[in-house]
Amino acid sequence: MKPVKIGVLGLGTVGGGTVNVLRRNADEIARRAGREIQVVRAFARDLNRSRICDTTGIGLTDDPYSIVNDPEIEIVAELIGGTGIARDLVLKALDNGKHVVTANKALIALHGNEIFAKARAQGLMVAFEAAVAGGIPIIKAVREGLAGNTIEWVAGIINGTCNYILTEMWEKGRDFPDVLQEAQALGYAEADPTFDVEGIDAAHKLTILASIAFGIPLQFDKVYIEGISGITRLDVAYAQALGYRIKLLGIARRTPAGVELRVHPTLIPERRLIANVNGVMNAVLVKGDAVGPTLFYGAGADPTGSSVVADLVDVVRMLTSDPDNRVPHLAFQPGSIADIPVLPASEMQTAYYLRLSAEDKPGVLADVTRILADHRISIEAIIQKEALADESHLPVILLTHKLKEKELNEALARIEALSTINGPVKRIRVETLG
Amino acid sequence: MKPVKIGVLGLGTVGGGTVNVLRRNADEIARRAGREIQVVRAFARDLNRSRICDTTGIGLTDDPYSIVNDPEIEIVAELIGGTGIARDLVLKALDNGKHVVTANKALIALHGNEIFAKARAQGLMVAFEAAVAGGIPIIKAVREGLAGNTIEWVAGIINGTCNYILTEMWEKGRDFPDVLQEAQALGYAEADPTFDVEGIDAAHKLTILASIAFGIPLQFDKVYIEGISGITRLDVAYAQALGYRIKLLGIARRTPAGVELRVHPTLIPERRLIANVNGVMNAVLVKGDAVGPTLFYGAGADPTGSSVVADLVDVVRMLTSDPDNRVPHLAFQPGSIADIPVLPASEMQTAYYLRLSAEDKPGVLADVTRILADHRISIEAIIQKEALADESHLPVILLTHKLKEKELNEALARIEALSTINGPVKRIRVETLG
Repeated sequence: MKPVKIGVLGLGTVGGGTVNVLRRNADEIARRAGREIQVVRAFARDLNRSRICDTTGIGLTDDPYSIVNDPEIEIVAELIGGTGIARDLVLKALDNGKHVVTANKALIALHGNEIFAKARAQGLMVAFEAAVAGGIPIIKAVREGLAGNTIEWVAGIINGTCNYILTEMWEKGRDFPDVLQEAQALGYAEADPTFDVEGIDAAHKLTILASIAFGIPLQFDKVYIEGISGITRLDVAYAQALGYRIKLLGIARRTPAGVELRVHPTLIPERRLIANVNGVMNAVLVKGDAVGPTLFYGAGADPTGSSVVADLVDVVRMLTSDPDNRVPHLAFQPGSIADIPVLPASEMQTAYYLRLSAEDKPGVLADVTRILADHRISIEAIIQKEALADESHLPVILLTHKLKEKELNEALARIEALSTINGPVKRIRVETLG
Repeated sequence: MKPVKIGVLGLGTVGGGTVNVLRRNADEIARRAGREIQVVRAFARDLNRSRICDTTGIGLTDDPYSIVNDPEIEIVAELIGGTGIARDLVLKALDNGKHVVTANKALIALHGNEIFAKARAQGLMVAFEAAVAGGIPIIKAVREGLAGNTIEWVAGIINGTCNYILTEMWEKGRDFPDVLQEAQALGYAEADPTFDVEGIDAAHKLTILASIAFGIPLQFDKVYIEGISGITRLDVAYAQALGYRIKLLGIARRTPAGVELRVHPTLIPERRLIANVNGVMNAVLVKGDAVGPTLFYGAGADPTGSSVVADLVDVVRMLTSDPDNRVPHLAFQPGSIADIPVLPASEMQTAYYLRLSAEDKPGVLADVTRILADHRISIEAIIQKEALADESHLPVILLTHKLKEKELNEALARIEALSTINGPVKRIRVETLG
């Protein structure tokens, strides 16, 4: 089947990231979508700037209208941001019969009602997963995955800049202006940080989340917004003394009187999972009446391209597939199931926790570590416990580095054969999940 | 538009829960799906048993074939479980032109390839979100939300019984047989716990996750499986001493040599979010090349009905909607957007952290607490710090119970007017997110 032709508006962090993902994972994506996705043209303001993506084979232009007017292009990915030219381009693309994918939270929060009405009138798709919480598929989760629930509330860490700043303040006892300056130097905060630190960006995203959670119109102007610039390291420390962490949350809550929409710094009990979402990471906690509390966690910024591409795949599946099997049962098209071998346990690699019961006399540990060294098994940690009063054996716990199970088996057979070792060695696998 | 007629097979925990969710949220679900979803008939083995759901208006039968053969029924929800009669019923339902929604992980893991082939041949839908991780929409997240990624690995806490047992062993220093017995008494473990504690249930779910992550066939027989019955409280304690928690993980990992599919107890560094998923909760951590690590957390057992209903909504949206707007932009059908008022900040209710700068002399705290009492504001905690050497004022931190902001404003105006209080009172909202 012919490739689907895409035009990309904007080649900055999100646009460049999207092009990179589409190139790197072209095969994997075509196996899922049922068709190849090809970026044929892209708009960039400055054609001579260096880019984070390879633009070979992509027709670059500094005229974005030439893309939304190009009859060859089926889907426009609007990755410029802001509510200026982006709104006009999206509406023009729809007028011209093109499906639209966008990462633009301000555009959707402020002009979504208008854009969606036009898309419906035209029978076209507008997808905006990337507008909220970057790579986390939270729009899909709320809009489809939790469709059986009456959603009671949503609370999200949806601005990575603020979460980075608050995490640094908490971990290092530093003050806001100091951390902000560093965040700007590291590229985690803009030169003008107002949008992020004063909560406006979070409020755009909250506006969208609230609409899809409760079925209410997009109404950004009714969000109560308070940023983090007034938080001091003393507040962070006192909150900690009381058992809390401070996070900038976007909260949408249904109450009998109406809906609360608010963005503000919030003390959260430290035992909550969401209180432990640190650095630039994002997380959204959704409370549904059927599902209970459910959390979606991931990176909010760089991986936005991941969500843009997921939306592209959604659109392509819709354009291409038998409607009843729009999404293939096993994610990949039936003809694209791969015959990758599944490894036997002996070939699997993990680190190991080993517990030995050793005679309480000198030299035993030396024997054990020598055998491990013979088999080139490195040890990361050893704990040797004192024997209890009534026992002649003491437990020795070892953590190994990663190795194949069959290599471990050989070493353990020798260790278990030692007269000073009592019974079989207990083993549990270790994964750092890093 | 006419309601969609559903037949439910099985009225146990999942089936009864599904009927409850469909009844309780009927309006909300119809606003999302575009049509009412009506359970017209249900199968139960014993018609006289008491049920967790109201069956008024549902035609009960002890003959499941009468449901899959009923020409009036459009969608069959298979919630019996197991691979005996369930397989035959699902295949019959497809033969008879009915879409199928199922929560049956064993059925999909063992017979999914056969069932999907028949569904495709018939042009019918088979949805199985509820088969993995209960209410967490992990199938949708991986199959659609992360469709742009090459998925590197998936690691999941996907058996609530095992996670409950390991959490109790860790929190209370108890041993496996002891906790298992209690879990059985509480209904968290079956009378025959083998399926759960020996990892078979987790392996069924892992089989499905691996297929949708990597695009490989379902191959349950190649999963390496090890349960938790050999874990002792000593292992849990030693792991903790080394900075780890022990969890039963299902892991699917892509390596250059092939795919690893394994279920086993695993030491995880305690600083990882997934190491802090406790009790009966489930979580799946997915590492994609574009998105990085992303975690999906929620309840695995009781809320399974949430996912069954989400699948029903998916099918109904497909049957009913304009294909290009199958899922409404704002989750609810355009004609069903509600005009719920958004509350002003003064009407919002939260608890508060208050920081006052108070003169270091007797009676100040009494004045403050009297004013709060006058306004019926209860205090949950107070911290009073010593003044620094060069300061005449000391910080007083108060945590209030929940109240409306306007009530707080009145009290704070009086407190700020006290001559012994220096400057405005700092306030930060508190949410327990419980």
